[in-house]
Amino acid sequence: MDETRLLEPDELAVLVSAALAANGMSEANARSVAKVIVAAERDASFSHGLFRVAGYIATLRSGHMDGRAVPLVEDAAPSIVKVDACNGFAQPAIDAGRPLAMEKARRTGLAALAIRNSHHFAALWPDVESFAEEGFVALAFVNSRMRIAPWDARRRLLGTNPMAFACPRRGGPPLVWDQASAITAQGQVLMAAGEGRRMPDGWLLDADGNETTDPNALQAGGALRSFGGHKGSGIALMVELLAAALTGGNFGFEDLEGELRGSATQNAGELILIIDPRGFGASGFVERVERLLDHLQQGGVSRFPSEARHKARAANAAGVPVPNAVYRQLLDLAGRKDAHG
Amino acid sequence: MDETRLLEPDELAVLVSAALAANGMSEANARSVAKVIVAAERDASFSHGLFRVAGYIATLRSGHMDGRAVPLVEDAAPSIVKVDACNGFAQPAIDAGRPLAMEKARRTGLAALAIRNSHHFAALWPDVESFAEEGFVALAFVNSRMRIAPWDARRRLLGTNPMAFACPRRGGPPLVWDQASAITAQGQVLMAAGEGRRMPDGWLLDADGNETTDPNALQAGGALRSFGGHKGSGIALMVELLAAALTGGNFGFEDLEGELRGSATQNAGELILIIDPRGFGASGFVERVERLLDHLQQGGVSRFPSEARHKARAANAAGVPVPNAVYRQLLDLAGRKDAHG
Repeated sequence: MDETRLLEPDELAVLVSAALAANGMSEANARSVAKVIVAAERDASFSHGLFRVAGYIATLRSGHMDGRAVPLVEDAAPSIVKVDACNGFAQPAIDAGRPLAMEKARRTGLAALAIRNSHHFAALWPDVESFAEEGFVALAFVNSRMRIAPWDARRRLLGTNPMAFACPRRGGPPLVWDQASAITAQGQVLMAAGEGRRMPDGWLLDADGNETTDPNALQAGGALRSFGGHKGSGIALMVELLAAALTGGNFGFEDLEGELRGSATQNAGELILIIDPRGFGASGFVERVERLLDHLQQGGVSRFPSEARHKARAANAAGVPVPNAVYRQLLDLAGRKDAHG
Repeated sequence: MDETRLLEPDELAVLVSAALAANGMSEANARSVAKVIVAAERDASFSHGLFRVAGYIATLRSGHMDGRAVPLVEDAAPSIVKVDACNGFAQPAIDAGRPLAMEKARRTGLAALAIRNSHHFAALWPDVESFAEEGFVALAFVNSRMRIAPWDARRRLLGTNPMAFACPRRGGPPLVWDQASAITAQGQVLMAAGEGRRMPDGWLLDADGNETTDPNALQAGGALRSFGGHKGSGIALMVELLAAALTGGNFGFEDLEGELRGSATQNAGELILIIDPRGFGASGFVERVERLLDHLQQGGVSRFPSEARHKARAANAAGVPVPNAVYRQLLDLAGRKDAHG
């Protein structure tokens, strides 16, 4: 095939990791970040897949954050793990805090993994899915650069502020959703801008607070509306409070440097809540989950969140399709020659 | 004044409590339930105020639940309190579990109050506001009778499944929101039906799965759409899993008896997550909250959730306006004569 090649997920992760490491990341941090980029591409979640590598590298080069940061883990309370990401990406901080957080959740029934001083440029679902694969229910909240005009405001004040939820299932990948509090994910707007598509009416405001359908307006100081009207605004505010105020992270509006210097990210925070169903004495929890999902399917729900992703994952298990142009770009960024010609 | 009289909140609570006690509730349970009914009326949150008393009493009379239930509190894990509401209303169960849940949250940083075998017919915000008044951040999730057609389904499969959030503020009542996962609260539909108003397009399906604007369709087996399209459906599913599967409560579809016998409620469950900001070492947490809210106000947000409610509360502190017809009905239900003529 001329335009696309298939790479095994691990092989692709090594390449992405090398591209990041050649541009200012430590090997360990590059592995943490490459893991989630490749997971998104493998799951056909393209807006957070290889498409994002350029943004990571622009951010690393901007000097706004530290690709070599070593996260500091603090045992803050019987159910709380705090991690100072030290101005690095969030993924190495999550990986650093994960074992202690799971141990606490098993012991007390609940745990919070509270990350601050961190940059999050990935999909949020990997942050919860990995806990659900270990039998936990998990919720994650991450704040980010200002993009939402909440309630009746006409300029950006809160981040796209996604929230994610994951729950274990029987004999298959977890049930997971990952939802921006904005009416659409910023990644979707970036992709529309790249492809010259317009956005639907009522989704975007320009920098002057006027309605627009031009996706470029967002990068030019505009704002997205929240999803579901005032209810999405309430969720965006909750996410900002949990991810930043509670963790000790920055609010979206406090890191203006990130807006000015070409970095794609924000020094912000993240909260992950981890719940152990075993602590609730809910024996047969997963059977209860399946009973509810059966009821929904029999009632006419044709597809659950994350099913399309998990289907793509199964289809791409042996090889993730990578456009040759993207492959050559990655080799180039990694400072490698194309051995395959 | 001929049509309305003013009653002090405590005086009104005594009257509502007497009306409930005269119709099958224990004194203690009647006090717990009357407290939230009067709080809603006092805050001009009419759809959950005195308007609901008739529904409580119909439920009590239906024999579907136990107004004299004595909740059983179980210390399940260092961060988990479980309460079996014993087929009673949720409010006495919350009151029973509250002290231990707060103690756990102070000790470990987090606590879950997991209630099952419970009926919830009140607003959800009192369940979180009371914790925020003690300095905690709180989230609550409650499932209920089937009312939502989620995703692409065309019949009711999930409850209106509200979620609530509360966060302490400096020198004033907490920031609180309480949002049904349905595009509107069931209480609003009931009120529209009572007043002969139509619902907006795209909100309701009738029992055959056809679009309708007739609010009576909901009581006749119809369904509400979720808010914000698929995102609200994801939240409704999360609420059902947290409130029922995790607590050991019933799903909305498991208690068909509630549908058949005139009871307005569902034997279901509720999860309240209580977070102690002090456990995160986030000193000055409330100052951070105020900093964010200042930023939003300066950016053009004219009103936060719960502000209208708190304004009404202040206005009604000395006297809650009660229509005379409603007052006489309450006296009647309580088996009292109208001493005031």
